[in-house]
Amino acid sequence: MQTLPFHPRGFRSCAKNVGIRDESLDFTVIASDVPASAAAMFTQNRFCGAAIPVGREHVANGRLQAFVINSKNANVATGEQGIRNIREVVRLVGEELGIAPEDILPSSTGVIGWQLPMEKLRASIRGFSAEMQPGCLHVSARAIMTTDTRPKMRARKIGNAVLVGIAKGVGMIEPNMATMLSYFMTDARIEPDQLQACLKEAVDLSFNMLSVDTDTSTSDTVAIMANGLAGDVNMIEFRQALCKMAVELTKDLASDGEGATKLIEVTVDEASSFGQAKRIAKSIVNSPLVKTAVFGADPNWGRIAMAIGKCSEQEEIDPEKVTIAFGDIVVYRGEPVEHVSLDQLKSYLHHSEIEIHVSLGLGHEQATVWGCDLTYEYVRINGEYTS
Amino acid sequence: MQTLPFHPRGFRSCAKNVGIRDESLDFTVIASDVPASAAAMFTQNRFCGAAIPVGREHVANGRLQAFVINSKNANVATGEQGIRNIREVVRLVGEELGIAPEDILPSSTGVIGWQLPMEKLRASIRGFSAEMQPGCLHVSARAIMTTDTRPKMRARKIGNAVLVGIAKGVGMIEPNMATMLSYFMTDARIEPDQLQACLKEAVDLSFNMLSVDTDTSTSDTVAIMANGLAGDVNMIEFRQALCKMAVELTKDLASDGEGATKLIEVTVDEASSFGQAKRIAKSIVNSPLVKTAVFGADPNWGRIAMAIGKCSEQEEIDPEKVTIAFGDIVVYRGEPVEHVSLDQLKSYLHHSEIEIHVSLGLGHEQATVWGCDLTYEYVRINGEYTS
Repeated sequence: MQTLPFHPRGFRSCAKNVGIRDESLDFTVIASDVPASAAAMFTQNRFCGAAIPVGREHVANGRLQAFVINSKNANVATGEQGIRNIREVVRLVGEELGIAPEDILPSSTGVIGWQLPMEKLRASIRGFSAEMQPGCLHVSARAIMTTDTRPKMRARKIGNAVLVGIAKGVGMIEPNMATMLSYFMTDARIEPDQLQACLKEAVDLSFNMLSVDTDTSTSDTVAIMANGLAGDVNMIEFRQALCKMAVELTKDLASDGEGATKLIEVTVDEASSFGQAKRIAKSIVNSPLVKTAVFGADPNWGRIAMAIGKCSEQEEIDPEKVTIAFGDIVVYRGEPVEHVSLDQLKSYLHHSEIEIHVSLGLGHEQATVWGCDLTYEYVRINGEYTS
Repeated sequence: MQTLPFHPRGFRSCAKNVGIRDESLDFTVIASDVPASAAAMFTQNRFCGAAIPVGREHVANGRLQAFVINSKNANVATGEQGIRNIREVVRLVGEELGIAPEDILPSSTGVIGWQLPMEKLRASIRGFSAEMQPGCLHVSARAIMTTDTRPKMRARKIGNAVLVGIAKGVGMIEPNMATMLSYFMTDARIEPDQLQACLKEAVDLSFNMLSVDTDTSTSDTVAIMANGLAGDVNMIEFRQALCKMAVELTKDLASDGEGATKLIEVTVDEASSFGQAKRIAKSIVNSPLVKTAVFGADPNWGRIAMAIGKCSEQEEIDPEKVTIAFGDIVVYRGEPVEHVSLDQLKSYLHHSEIEIHVSLGLGHEQATVWGCDLTYEYVRINGEYTS
């Protein structure tokens, strides 16, 4: 099992199988030995999971001491009973660890519309505090997986402090002001307001630039705890490190997108605003016709033009000013570039990372987004998810 | 070959192969013996085909006498040369038929980014007027096909008049104020203003309610000619007939969607506005996760909740007021309906037409949209389109 090279001080965790759907890891708790500064961002989906309002309430004062996360069941569209269930999970975990329930942020991910199996959860939570250990966040990274094929995790030192991030999510990914599940733990000392600002900046440039299938999860959560045990850090370095780690985890998620065989990175520049660059880049990375062409290595670059042009409601595009390139191969510059070798383009499209670059010729802003191809395997995975 | 039961007076047509890409029908002209009232709606895609501005210009005065349509090449993203080419096609067709170029509406559909093969077109247009015949609009319905597996056409009598409609389009379908290619011909006498109003009403309730893959074609055009040879009609009957025919053609297009095995009809009612009902219905019918679940007959109804909830930016949804049903099977009414048989739901999902019904509990407006499932075949068709 892949591990992490270093760990932040004062965090312990445990991950186990409580039998929610099968015998894989489906439950994890990550706790700090001392109360930590905290920040979080959540899905904007109106049919959000029962854990979301509870987590939002608990992080409001900028302080948390633990995350509790179950996979395989999202506890979404479960009405009042769903809320009562997740509150009970939080209370039991708190009693077991000696932490106030208000200092615990819960998350659930998995199938929508089923109640949590409370008997199994109660039985498993009883006595689990004896299993909490330092240095095993890599097991938590596995326990939060659903259809992921591999865990996503990163560790980095900033001065004397350590920052670790874990993430999951390979489908239903079109984050809207938040993301799939991702958790960051650091022993740096950072005030809650600063932490929230750092997290928002990192999320806006990473997870919010990711799409797998245009579907927005009901459970998206990204949260961070900073327990201060390593003292102060250089905040410029910390912000850069958090941003960089979030982008790396985002690319990990995109390349493990359901059924994905290729990572797609789309950069739109010379836009009149960041918003315009992002909308057009998302339109390209989300287009099923672009995604299937990348999968099939079909040099059908006209679909990029289509995806740029369909953003017509908000955008003033001038096709004569547009340039379209795949890697170094420019295919369109106001009109089709003559003598482009479709064979060369086809061979480029066989790479595992495809870069699409569009210049709009309108201004000076740019955005980069990530996604993946659309494959037979995406259809198979999602045609038989609950069956 | 399927034919039409009756034909409007005074329309002649010819359809042939000019060798644009292969040996199938790829070129058709439909002309009225006399100038006709006319109306049209076009794609809002900014990267629109060269034919679009020319057609828009020619229909502006409410009068047309012919449609000329080629398939297999969309003449999109082809710069100034593309415009010069389509103007030449229109001029040559006009000379051949003795019709002013300004009374001809051109359309092109097919691959994006390639110039029209003008030598072949010039050779084929020369002398084709001798091939124009009445009663063969069903051959035109074939000539406009690209990846369609069957032609779409309808005929209907309104009093003494006849209305015929043909349509094509099975991918890149998320019309935006217009539609894929569709043409209506009638011998009823109708003023241009009235005709435009009828067409807009019909399109808004039919083609604009259709999605195959959220991608908006660069060539969408719907147009109608009314040559008046049958005299006046009851306009209420005509409007109803045009709407009904447009909805039928829309359902034909949806069930022939690229790779589709099932037609999906989504109705959202009890909405606070038509716009809200339409946005939520489209969010459901466009969700890749809903589309793959329908394909796999996976009773994963939670994805409907997800797709409703993800319209969070514009919508005030209250999950407690929402009802979700598949056909007669209610699965969610503010919370999961107990004792729903997932086996019964699974067996319903094996039908070839799936009805999803959502009530929002907010108001009195409703909308119905159409789409299709997402299958291995969609991925295959679009992974190797140009190769």
